[in-house]
Amino acid sequence: MAKEIPYKIYLDESELPTQWYNLRADMENKPAPLLNPATKKPMTAEELAPVFCDELVAQELDETTPYIDIPEEIRSFYKMYRPSPLVRAYFLEKKLDTPAKIYYKFEGNNTSGSHKLNSAIAQAYYAKKQGLKGVTTETGAGQWGTALSMACSYFGLDCKVFMVKVSYEQKPFRREVMRTYGASVTPSPSEETVIGRKILAAHPGTTGSLGCAISEAVEVATSNEGYRYVLGSVLNQVLLHQSVIGLETKAALDKYDIHPDIIIGCAGGGSNLGGLIAPFMGEKLRGEADYRIIAVEPQSCPSFTRGRFAYDFCDTGMICPLAKMYTLGCDYIPAPNHAGGLRFHGMSSTLSQLYHDGYMEAVAVPQTDVFEAAEEFARVEGILPAPESSHAILQAIREAKKCRDTGEEKTIVFGLTGTGYFDMVAYEKFHDQLMENYRPTDAELQESFAKLPQI
Amino acid sequence: MAKEIPYKIYLDESELPTQWYNLRADMENKPAPLLNPATKKPMTAEELAPVFCDELVAQELDETTPYIDIPEEIRSFYKMYRPSPLVRAYFLEKKLDTPAKIYYKFEGNNTSGSHKLNSAIAQAYYAKKQGLKGVTTETGAGQWGTALSMACSYFGLDCKVFMVKVSYEQKPFRREVMRTYGASVTPSPSEETVIGRKILAAHPGTTGSLGCAISEAVEVATSNEGYRYVLGSVLNQVLLHQSVIGLETKAALDKYDIHPDIIIGCAGGGSNLGGLIAPFMGEKLRGEADYRIIAVEPQSCPSFTRGRFAYDFCDTGMICPLAKMYTLGCDYIPAPNHAGGLRFHGMSSTLSQLYHDGYMEAVAVPQTDVFEAAEEFARVEGILPAPESSHAILQAIREAKKCRDTGEEKTIVFGLTGTGYFDMVAYEKFHDQLMENYRPTDAELQESFAKLPQI
Repeated sequence: MAKEIPYKIYLDESELPTQWYNLRADMENKPAPLLNPATKKPMTAEELAPVFCDELVAQELDETTPYIDIPEEIRSFYKMYRPSPLVRAYFLEKKLDTPAKIYYKFEGNNTSGSHKLNSAIAQAYYAKKQGLKGVTTETGAGQWGTALSMACSYFGLDCKVFMVKVSYEQKPFRREVMRTYGASVTPSPSEETVIGRKILAAHPGTTGSLGCAISEAVEVATSNEGYRYVLGSVLNQVLLHQSVIGLETKAALDKYDIHPDIIIGCAGGGSNLGGLIAPFMGEKLRGEADYRIIAVEPQSCPSFTRGRFAYDFCDTGMICPLAKMYTLGCDYIPAPNHAGGLRFHGMSSTLSQLYHDGYMEAVAVPQTDVFEAAEEFARVEGILPAPESSHAILQAIREAKKCRDTGEEKTIVFGLTGTGYFDMVAYEKFHDQLMENYRPTDAELQESFAKLPQI
Repeated sequence: MAKEIPYKIYLDESELPTQWYNLRADMENKPAPLLNPATKKPMTAEELAPVFCDELVAQELDETTPYIDIPEEIRSFYKMYRPSPLVRAYFLEKKLDTPAKIYYKFEGNNTSGSHKLNSAIAQAYYAKKQGLKGVTTETGAGQWGTALSMACSYFGLDCKVFMVKVSYEQKPFRREVMRTYGASVTPSPSEETVIGRKILAAHPGTTGSLGCAISEAVEVATSNEGYRYVLGSVLNQVLLHQSVIGLETKAALDKYDIHPDIIIGCAGGGSNLGGLIAPFMGEKLRGEADYRIIAVEPQSCPSFTRGRFAYDFCDTGMICPLAKMYTLGCDYIPAPNHAGGLRFHGMSSTLSQLYHDGYMEAVAVPQTDVFEAAEEFARVEGILPAPESSHAILQAIREAKKCRDTGEEKTIVFGLTGTGYFDMVAYEKFHDQLMENYRPTDAELQESFAKLPQI
């Protein structure tokens, strides 16, 4: 007889992952390497060392080791807020009157409000281990900055955050949380860096982008002794750390003999999606199991669905290495009315390759539909979701409604990356019907693509 | 051999309480009854019926039934966010270098951000069962209003919230969360009620108090067909529902054979404290076990430590029944610089009687010490605590430091009632060193006591 599925599946501490899973090891077509923008040749560990911590460079370049031990100090920190629950959305199923079985992996039960802490603590650990003074970074919606502040506070590292200006203004209290954890926060673009001043001169009044903020953070890291840059998404190392989400999810499902049919995650730079799907994609790559895997992105920043698969800069200032990825062009800045995260112009190289090779689907959704789904979810499941996470909720609801129409009892798993407690300005706009749906025109994208570097 | 204590103890769903525990059943000296302000005689069920739902009136007046079944619908809702974790504060212990073992019961993992949902869902359930249209209430820090909004949304009830003006202004986003759940929110005192207009005329520019907001909510409930008033603290029924906190805590401790020496909770009206300590106090009353039980209140609103044990009104408008309790006088309004909750002038009658009879201790603490403890806790335990909860943190830290000095390995359990994500204005004041410590003078209190009703 099948075990009764509880509302929330919590793994025991003894069942927590002790290794991260490196998805690239199982990929036949490896993601294309990062290129040095000057030489157009693959970046070496030596070239990456001024930017990233040594151990993280090694992880970034390692495409063959399938499992990498999680250091004891990080596992200990993980126990502060992990395992995160895998929740059976009984209330949502009932509301939708669907035969589908819906589960979500909820990563919001920590003060950073999202999954970002999983990689922040790893990156801070390696920085500390290398004897560094501090790290710099960018943050969009603010979750990554908060997560890094918490991690740096734990290890006694200095933390300097460049926050995309539109988020800095829309989320005034995020800054205060970071301050509680001792970080310094600067709205980007700023006058504090060469690249910031250049961007401000070229685009006066810009509300910023992740691409700008990355350029500023990298400049500060590379021009100050004892500092390195850390990034909360896109990179292979980040997907590696975030695999803890998927590994826990898989362990919880396996415990109850549940086989998902569809796995859904929101996609900005790919950190959550890449982490959530990692072990499932691994099985798919090895031909052991099959899943429909769906990336959900905003219509205002549709890298997968309307971007080019090409080499591009990860930052607006064009000082970072080139990555081959689905990109809208490193100059692309989503409309400021787009709430919060998922604003990055590109996408993880690993996920881009997998999407290119047909291992996953992608869909772009309009913002007001996302907030409708968010509110519907909040009212029945009791969690006020982050706008980013709500992209996945929307798609899960759509798939569950299809099941209602067809009578299929599919099992849907989606990533609920975090809470929306610092997104109330966006919710207020939605309630007051002041929220707009932005979708770039083909002409706008063509103009942006024209500036892609010729590789 | 003793079992290894995990960082977080989660009960299985099958271990969740199926009954609430009614502490009064084990009290030899029962709390004094509510009095009708006109007749000065104990309120009957009939007299309470226009204000509260029938079933809740029965619970309010029942001082003999020790265990009351939790209806299936409420238990099902509880599973959405319960069990809450009992967390071993390993990181805090290490930081304090104390031999004490510290545990906290964390009630903040739901969107109301606190324990308030435990009673909100019960009260909404009984209102729905009685076929009512809606409920009215007051909210201070906003947790109770949010909790009630969530509960009303779940059962399809209309929800009208009067929010203490100072909180309404300090916590602009709380209103938006309540709106997400479909509630209407009015800053109190307001022009919408007779009593609100009267209070505004008498105290122009007042920033409000729970006492004012209660008066307004009761007036609206009793003058509208199909509405009743619900209250988030102070009442016996609320302590009954909140006993789920203590019952879970005790079950989790018992599972690992842990016997606490000290139990600490913050105290405003007593909902969290009364719920947390319920089963432990029951054992103490029955002579089965002994515990030090400590209530922590703000110096700016010191009901236990400096109030009178006397009959008083629960509301500023003097339209509610009289309760015998530790009170500062129903006209007492804490300084507006006091952040957030714990602003009620009185205290649960049950807890007041227990305190009067020597079963518990109380301590009043200054606000800046509370925020220092909050920040220290956030940096090591990763949870940004609510200011209210941080009163308990401060006292737990003090007790743990005593253990460090004496070498005693005491086990300390405290209630972490919620998160501070909507309290960043207060944190900002603290960071900017603009936070003041207010303590009423003896003369101020004497003036307030002089107005106590003569019973």
